[in-house]
Amino acid sequence: MTIIDGNKISAQLKAELKEQVEQRLNAGKKRPHLAAILVGNDGASETYIGHKVKACEFVGFKSTIVRLSSEISENQLIEEIQKLNTDKDIDGIIVQLPLPKHISEERVIETISPQKDVDGFTAVSAGKLLIGQKGFVSATPAGIVELIERYHIPTAGKHCVVLGRSNIVGKPMAVLMSRKGYPGDATVTICHSKSENLSEITKSADILIVALGIPNYVTADMVKVGAVVIDVGITRIKSDTSKTGWKIVGDVNFDEVSEKCSFITPVPGGVGPMTIVSLLKNTLEACSKKS
Amino acid sequence: MTIIDGNKISAQLKAELKEQVEQRLNAGKKRPHLAAILVGNDGASETYIGHKVKACEFVGFKSTIVRLSSEISENQLIEEIQKLNTDKDIDGIIVQLPLPKHISEERVIETISPQKDVDGFTAVSAGKLLIGQKGFVSATPAGIVELIERYHIPTAGKHCVVLGRSNIVGKPMAVLMSRKGYPGDATVTICHSKSENLSEITKSADILIVALGIPNYVTADMVKVGAVVIDVGITRIKSDTSKTGWKIVGDVNFDEVSEKCSFITPVPGGVGPMTIVSLLKNTLEACSKKS
Repeated sequence: MTIIDGNKISAQLKAELKEQVEQRLNAGKKRPHLAAILVGNDGASETYIGHKVKACEFVGFKSTIVRLSSEISENQLIEEIQKLNTDKDIDGIIVQLPLPKHISEERVIETISPQKDVDGFTAVSAGKLLIGQKGFVSATPAGIVELIERYHIPTAGKHCVVLGRSNIVGKPMAVLMSRKGYPGDATVTICHSKSENLSEITKSADILIVALGIPNYVTADMVKVGAVVIDVGITRIKSDTSKTGWKIVGDVNFDEVSEKCSFITPVPGGVGPMTIVSLLKNTLEACSKKS
Repeated sequence: MTIIDGNKISAQLKAELKEQVEQRLNAGKKRPHLAAILVGNDGASETYIGHKVKACEFVGFKSTIVRLSSEISENQLIEEIQKLNTDKDIDGIIVQLPLPKHISEERVIETISPQKDVDGFTAVSAGKLLIGQKGFVSATPAGIVELIERYHIPTAGKHCVVLGRSNIVGKPMAVLMSRKGYPGDATVTICHSKSENLSEITKSADILIVALGIPNYVTADMVKVGAVVIDVGITRIKSDTSKTGWKIVGDVNFDEVSEKCSFITPVPGGVGPMTIVSLLKNTLEACSKKS
């Protein structure tokens, strides 16, 4: 059994990106620039944005945080995005979610220019993915694909079961695994809260991707011997054994499932570290398209 | 066993649409107007467009065929579409495919305004479908959903297997059946040419949707007793028994499969008649959004 090391792979990728940025700058090309919009003062959002800014610094990107009051109107927020859309120095735009309740996330996200939609959240990006055009794939699915590739996990003709049908993980993951080429060409089953006989389906999976947000949901009896298990869940639960009184757990019962499978991502240290790197990759790509 | 009668349902729907158009006109509202672009003189394309025009006439839509030479340049064709995009009387625009080889279908389709993309072929339409926003669903999948609804076929928690991963049938069908609500909430498996153990998967299907384009591919031993079978295949093959020397067959061996299943669509007369009606529905919707 191999533990898929997201920390190692993400560090490799960041080193590769750093190298590519240096080459760009040496060639007299523009430094990639990511702009992040942060509305209000949510603690978790501050933390996420902080990680993204730090990662930008590491690989040599410029980053800008546009901090806006939680009182901002939807139209004012849209105007801010339009400014970033037309700003030639900005390559990628992300809006940290969630937004205050009086603002339509859909309307705000759809304002982002598809050329700068490095989170891959707009309808245009989702559509390009679905119909097989080149475009930005959202960070978590792109990170999972990267892990599968770097560990040379075969996918063609395999049965890939995706648990969860969210817009940011389950649905794009199903599209990516069923598309032509590698990683892809898998027979994909997408399951969700309404699915019946779930453990019968998961037991038939060669590759099981779990994105439900339910701690320790997948147990050993739900997994086939030799399966590849990708755990996207990240939930903070109380713990008597950790110093902080909390620990992070995934959707998969790692201890028992890891004994049966061929590959598994741990939580933390599996899929998690990959998401920011995918965002950086998309930003570099957005920048490269311009010059 | 019930034969799903696409001719009957499509006639009902056309009557309903005709009624809605009359109500619009009586209320002083605009007559829906579909524009179809036809490049070159392909016989099959002429036939398809002819059917669409006739259907428009029946329900009371205005229709315009823009006939263009097969020598037209990509840019000229794009200009023609831009004219239709800004023409306030035109509600829906379709481009009859295939286009001549020197023209990029992707670039041409992507020129169509999302508000007028009644074929649902643009990336924006595909993306809206994937992430659950309201938009135009392409005609064949929309027609299948309509049949499932009109025959009150349960879908929640059922296992729906889709054979084929085309942009216009397989992929949107998988999205529609797995989305929240009815028809939907199914556990969906998408299979294709690279899938292994195919008949094992099809045998587990409560609902089997076949869009491979391989005549008589699905045989009785591949189908579970009581399954719902939707046949999207339309292939013209030689026949000794028909007057013309040709007959139309589906991807499903109807004679043997129909004895095992609960519902089945025949070919012809099943899914086929529904596609044009779905196009008309989208056009009326596009028109209704404006006034």
